[in-house]
Amino acid sequence: MVRTISLFLCLISVCLAAEWRDQAILHLSASPHAKLHPVPVRAVKFHEGFWKKRQTAAIERSIPTLLELLEQNGVVDNFRRLTGAKNVPRRGPLYTDSDLYKWMEAAAWSLHVKDDPQLRATIERLTGEILAAQEPSGYLNTYFVEERVKDRFQRMQSGHELYCLGHLLQAGIAYYRATGNRKLLEGGMRFVDYLIRDFGPAPKKPLLTGHPELELALAELYRTTGQRKYLDLAGYLLSGVERERLNLRDSEVRYMFSGIPFVSRIKFEGHAVRAMYAATGAADYYIETGDAAYRRTLDLLWQDYVSSKMYVTGGVGSRSQGESFGEPYELPNLTAYAESCAAIGSLIFNQRLLAMTGDAKYADVMERALYNAINSGMSLDGTLYCYRNPLASAGEKIRNPWYSTTCCPPNLQRTFAALGGYFYSTSREGVYVHFYDNSEVAWKLESGTAFRLTQTTGMPWRGTVSLKVEPAAAEEFTLFLRIPAWSKTATVTVNGARVSDPARPGHYFPIRRTWKAGDRVELALAVAPSLVTSNPRVENNWGKAAVQAGPLIYCIEQPDHPGVSVFDVALSRSGAWDVRWEADLLGGVQVLRRQGWTWKQPLSGQPLYSPMADAAAPTEQLQLTFIPYYAWANRGPNAMQVWLPVR
Amino acid sequence: MVRTISLFLCLISVCLAAEWRDQAILHLSASPHAKLHPVPVRAVKFHEGFWKKRQTAAIERSIPTLLELLEQNGVVDNFRRLTGAKNVPRRGPLYTDSDLYKWMEAAAWSLHVKDDPQLRATIERLTGEILAAQEPSGYLNTYFVEERVKDRFQRMQSGHELYCLGHLLQAGIAYYRATGNRKLLEGGMRFVDYLIRDFGPAPKKPLLTGHPELELALAELYRTTGQRKYLDLAGYLLSGVERERLNLRDSEVRYMFSGIPFVSRIKFEGHAVRAMYAATGAADYYIETGDAAYRRTLDLLWQDYVSSKMYVTGGVGSRSQGESFGEPYELPNLTAYAESCAAIGSLIFNQRLLAMTGDAKYADVMERALYNAINSGMSLDGTLYCYRNPLASAGEKIRNPWYSTTCCPPNLQRTFAALGGYFYSTSREGVYVHFYDNSEVAWKLESGTAFRLTQTTGMPWRGTVSLKVEPAAAEEFTLFLRIPAWSKTATVTVNGARVSDPARPGHYFPIRRTWKAGDRVELALAVAPSLVTSNPRVENNWGKAAVQAGPLIYCIEQPDHPGVSVFDVALSRSGAWDVRWEADLLGGVQVLRRQGWTWKQPLSGQPLYSPMADAAAPTEQLQLTFIPYYAWANRGPNAMQVWLPVR
Repeated sequence: MVRTISLFLCLISVCLAAEWRDQAILHLSASPHAKLHPVPVRAVKFHEGFWKKRQTAAIERSIPTLLELLEQNGVVDNFRRLTGAKNVPRRGPLYTDSDLYKWMEAAAWSLHVKDDPQLRATIERLTGEILAAQEPSGYLNTYFVEERVKDRFQRMQSGHELYCLGHLLQAGIAYYRATGNRKLLEGGMRFVDYLIRDFGPAPKKPLLTGHPELELALAELYRTTGQRKYLDLAGYLLSGVERERLNLRDSEVRYMFSGIPFVSRIKFEGHAVRAMYAATGAADYYIETGDAAYRRTLDLLWQDYVSSKMYVTGGVGSRSQGESFGEPYELPNLTAYAESCAAIGSLIFNQRLLAMTGDAKYADVMERALYNAINSGMSLDGTLYCYRNPLASAGEKIRNPWYSTTCCPPNLQRTFAALGGYFYSTSREGVYVHFYDNSEVAWKLESGTAFRLTQTTGMPWRGTVSLKVEPAAAEEFTLFLRIPAWSKTATVTVNGARVSDPARPGHYFPIRRTWKAGDRVELALAVAPSLVTSNPRVENNWGKAAVQAGPLIYCIEQPDHPGVSVFDVALSRSGAWDVRWEADLLGGVQVLRRQGWTWKQPLSGQPLYSPMADAAAPTEQLQLTFIPYYAWANRGPNAMQVWLPVR
Repeated sequence: MVRTISLFLCLISVCLAAEWRDQAILHLSASPHAKLHPVPVRAVKFHEGFWKKRQTAAIERSIPTLLELLEQNGVVDNFRRLTGAKNVPRRGPLYTDSDLYKWMEAAAWSLHVKDDPQLRATIERLTGEILAAQEPSGYLNTYFVEERVKDRFQRMQSGHELYCLGHLLQAGIAYYRATGNRKLLEGGMRFVDYLIRDFGPAPKKPLLTGHPELELALAELYRTTGQRKYLDLAGYLLSGVERERLNLRDSEVRYMFSGIPFVSRIKFEGHAVRAMYAATGAADYYIETGDAAYRRTLDLLWQDYVSSKMYVTGGVGSRSQGESFGEPYELPNLTAYAESCAAIGSLIFNQRLLAMTGDAKYADVMERALYNAINSGMSLDGTLYCYRNPLASAGEKIRNPWYSTTCCPPNLQRTFAALGGYFYSTSREGVYVHFYDNSEVAWKLESGTAFRLTQTTGMPWRGTVSLKVEPAAAEEFTLFLRIPAWSKTATVTVNGARVSDPARPGHYFPIRRTWKAGDRVELALAVAPSLVTSNPRVENNWGKAAVQAGPLIYCIEQPDHPGVSVFDVALSRSGAWDVRWEADLLGGVQVLRRQGWTWKQPLSGQPLYSPMADAAAPTEQLQLTFIPYYAWANRGPNAMQVWLPVR
C-alpha cells in the first residue's frame, strides 16, 4: 500500500516536473473553478511600445539596482550572519526577508522574459545562502533567532513570519517555473511541512496570518505540487477559527483582515494590502474548492471596493493611519495613501476573479490599476519608487530609491517582469485578449493546437489594434476581444470585413470562426480624451472632473503651468482637446491640452471663507496641459492634481 | 536688606490678596502689553437666553455628574492611595491628575457665577486629599510614584508631568479668585518652586513641556503673585534651548510644538491642542514682556490658522492621526478631528490676541469657535461630550459620557462656567462689548467709576440688541460695540437717535460720549441666513456652501430628512428661507428651511465614476431642514452634513 502511494506520488511529481515550462503566474490547468487559464509569462513577448519600455526599465535598471540596495542595507547579510559567513548585527524591520524573496521572485519572472545566466547564478547563490540559514526543522526567518527564538509564533498579529514564508514560496515557484530548479521551492515546502506538523486546529498550536499572503502562496503551492495539504492549510488560515485561542481583539481582526472567518466579511476595511491579499487568497481557495460561501463573500467585497473605495487611478487605501481603507466614498486626493502594494493587491485579486468568471468588469479594474496607480509606482528610469500614490500633491518628495520598509519596489518589479502573463488567457472556447499593446503570444489552444497571436497597435495612445492570428492548423475557436468600459464605441473587422454584432463596452467581444494562419482582426477603440466625474458622495470630487484617455488617467503638473499654481485652475465643461505626441517628454507621452480658467488673484491670498455672493469665480483664461498620471514626479518633486474644478 | 525685601514682598502679597475678587480669567491689570482688560467672571450674569441655558447645563448637570465619573474611574483614588486612604491600584492614563484639576477649575469658576457652600466644601476636601499626596519637595503626580519614581522627568515628551502641574495651577488660581483661599494655589507653587530650584538652563537639569500648558499657567501665576521667576520659567520653556540636551527629534518638536524656540515657528503643525496651548502661552508671555519676536511669530501663526487651517465651525486639527493639523487647506469634513480641546485652544489663543490689540478679528474667531465647534462638544443636557467635532458624519456614536482620556469634558465645563468673563473688557478709553446675549455686567471703568451694562436681545436668533448703560456717575468714555464680520449691515441708535457713522463689519464701533444712567443703545445686526463658500483650495468644499445665520453654522441631520440620505441632497443657489422658532426642538432652536434637490435614484446605488456627459444631476425637489450645528447628535447618533453641493 505504502509502495503504491509512493509510486503514485512519484508519477504525479514526474508529471508536474515535466510541465514547469508551461506554468503561468497562476497555474490553473487543473483548477475546477477557473474558467480562464492564463498563458505562461514566457509565452508573451512585448514588442516596442508602451509596456516594453516599462518592463525593460524594471528588468535592466530596477531589478539590478535594488539588489545592490538590499545588500547595502544588510538584508542579505541577515541570512549570512546566521551561518557565520558574516559577523554583523541583524538590520532592518522584522519583515526584511520578504523583500529579498520578492526581489528573487521578480528576478525569476524576468528570466521568463529574457534568460540571463548571470542572473540565474545570482539567484542560485542567494538560494544557497538563504537555505544555509534554514534550521533542520524547516523553520526559516532571520529575525526570530538567538534571543528571539522564544518569540516565534507568539505575536502573530505583527510577527510577519508567515508573510515572509508566503513570499519565499512565491519566489521558489517563480524560479521553478523559470528553470525547473526546485531548490528554493523545496526550502519553502520544508518550512510549510514544519508548520503542518505542529500547527493547525486543536490540539495542534493555533496559527494566524497577521499579514495575509501565505494563503495565496499555499494555493499556488498546491497547484504546483498537487499536494492537498497545502490547500487545506490555506483553508484553515482563511477559516478564522482561532480567534478565541489567540485572544484577538476586534481592532486586530479589522486591521489584519484575518482572524475571523473570511466568509463573515461584508466589506473591505483595515490595512489595504492585508485585505487585498486576504481576498486574493480566498479567491484562490474558491477556484480550487468552489465553496459557495466564499463566492458570495468575494462578490460582496468586490462590489464594496468598486462602488465606494477605489480611486479613479485604481489606487486602494485612503488613509495613512494604518495604511487603511476609509469609510465608503472616503477618497481624499491630497492625503490619499494608495500604496503601490495595495494597487497590486487589487490587480491580483481581480486577476483571480477574471479567471473564475471571464467577466470583463474585472479586467477593467485590473487595467485601471495597472496603467495608473501601479504604473506610477516606479519612476520612468526604474530607480525610484512611490510608496504612496496620491491624486494631488503639494510637491513633497514622493519617489525614493529606498525605504526601510521596501515592500513596494520588488512588488512593482515582479508585476512588470511578469506582465505578459496578465495579457492573455485561454478557455475551452478559445483565446482571450485582455489588454492591448504591441506584443505576441505563442502558446496553445486547450485542444492542444499551437497558435501565435500578434498585436500591432499604438495603444494606449491610439485606439486601433491589428491582430494577426496564426494557429498551427486551421481550427474553430473563439477569439475574445475585451472591449474596455471606457471605449464608448468599438468596431471590429475580420480580414477586412466589418463584424456587424455590436461591441459592448465592458464585455468581451467573441469572434467564433475557423481561424487559419494569416487571419487578421482589426479593432478600433475610442481613446479620445474625456471628462470623468465621480459619485457626488465622494466629498472632495463634487463639481470636479478627471481626464481620461483610453486606460490612462491624466493629471496637471506644476512644470507645465509656469506662473500659476496647479491648485488655482479650473476646467471648462466643454472645449476642444489638443492632443499631441511628445517624444522627448517623460519618455514619450501623449500630452493633452485644453482651455481652462484661473482666478484673477492667487487663491493662496484669498480668505478661507466668504459669503457665496462675494466669492470670486475663475475668470481668466489659460491653457491647461495634462500628462499621464503615471509619469508625474519624474521631473523632480512637483505639485500635481488629478481632479479639477469644472467651471 | 533682607528685612526690607521681606517687608516689600509682604506688602505685595497683602496688595494681591486684597484683590482676588477683582481678578478676571486673565488678570491683566498690570500687564504692560494688554490694551484690553477682561472683566471678572463674577461681574457678569447671564439672563434667560442662549448661553444661560448652556451655562446652567454645565453647572447643574455636567460638573456634578463628571465628578461622579472621575470617582468611579479612580481618578481621585489615585491621590488617596498615596496617603493610604485607599488601598487600590492606580488607574487610567498617566495624565488623569489633570482631568481632576480641570474639573476643579471648572467648579471654581462656577462659584463665580453662583456660590455653593457644598461645592466649596467638596473642592476644599479634594484640595486636602490632593495636597496630602504632595511630597515634601513639592513634587506632586500620582503616576510617577513607587517603582516609577526613577522615570520622573525622563520622558518629558510624553510624561505630562508639567501639563498636570499647569492645570493644578489654573485650578488653584480659579479657586483663589473665587474664594480667596490660596491652599491649592500654594500647593501648585510649591511644585513650581521645586522645579525652579533644580531645573532650568545649564548647569541645572533641562525641562520641556511635552504638552504645552504650563507656560500659560505660569504667566497667570506671575500675574497672581507678582513673582517674576514664574514668568521667567515660562520664558525658559518657550525658548526651546534644550533641544540638544534632550536629544529631541524633528518629529517630536513638530508634534509637541515645543522643544525649539517658539519664535522660530512659522506655521501651525503637529498636535493641535499642544500647538494652540503653546501659542496661547507665548501670547501671555508677549503680553508681559512685549518681546517683538514673539509678536511677529504670533501674527504669522494666526494668519496661517485663519487662512488655511480653521474649519468654518472654528474647529481645529484635521487629522485623527496624531490629533494633528494637516497641510494648508486640508480640511476634510467626514474625517475632521476638530477636538473640542483644540477649539477651546483657539478660543483662549484669540482671547489673548484680542486683549493685546483690541482688534475685532480675534473676537470673530473666538465667536466662531464658541458658538459652533466648542458648543457642539457638550450635549444639550450636559451629560455627553464630543471628543471629535466632524463636519459630516455617517452616524457613528459621537457623544459619550466618559473617555479614558477625558480632557474635553472638564475643558468644556471650565469654558462654559467662566463664559461671562469672555464677554466684556475695559480699556483706558472705556468698555468693550465682545459678544451679544441677555446679560448684565456690573464692574468699574478704569477711572474707577462703577457701571452696569445690561443687554436685552434675542441673539443669536434675532439681531437686535438693547443696551442699558448705567455709570454710577455721568462720565465721558467710549462704548465699543463689536460689529461681527458676518453682519453685512449694522445700525446703531443712542437714546433713539441714529448714529450716522458707518458701522464696519469686523470692527468695533466706538461711541464716545458722556454716558449717564439710563442711556440706551440699540444695535441691529443682520442675522438672516446666508450661504458661505470656502476657498477653492479646500478640495472637499468646491461647489458647496455652508449655511450661517448670525454666529451660528447650520447643518442638516438625518431625522429631519426621512426617506433621503443627507448625503444625497444639494442646495439651490438662490431661494427663500423659511425661518421658524421651534421651542420644543433641541432645547429651542431656530430652524431654517429651504428648497433643495435630490437625485432620482439614491447615490449609494450609482457608479463610483461615470463619463461627465452621463452623470445624473439632482433634479428632484425637496425641502431641506437646517438645525444649528452645535445641536446635532442630540437625538441619538445620526448622519449629518455641514457643506452641501450647490446646484
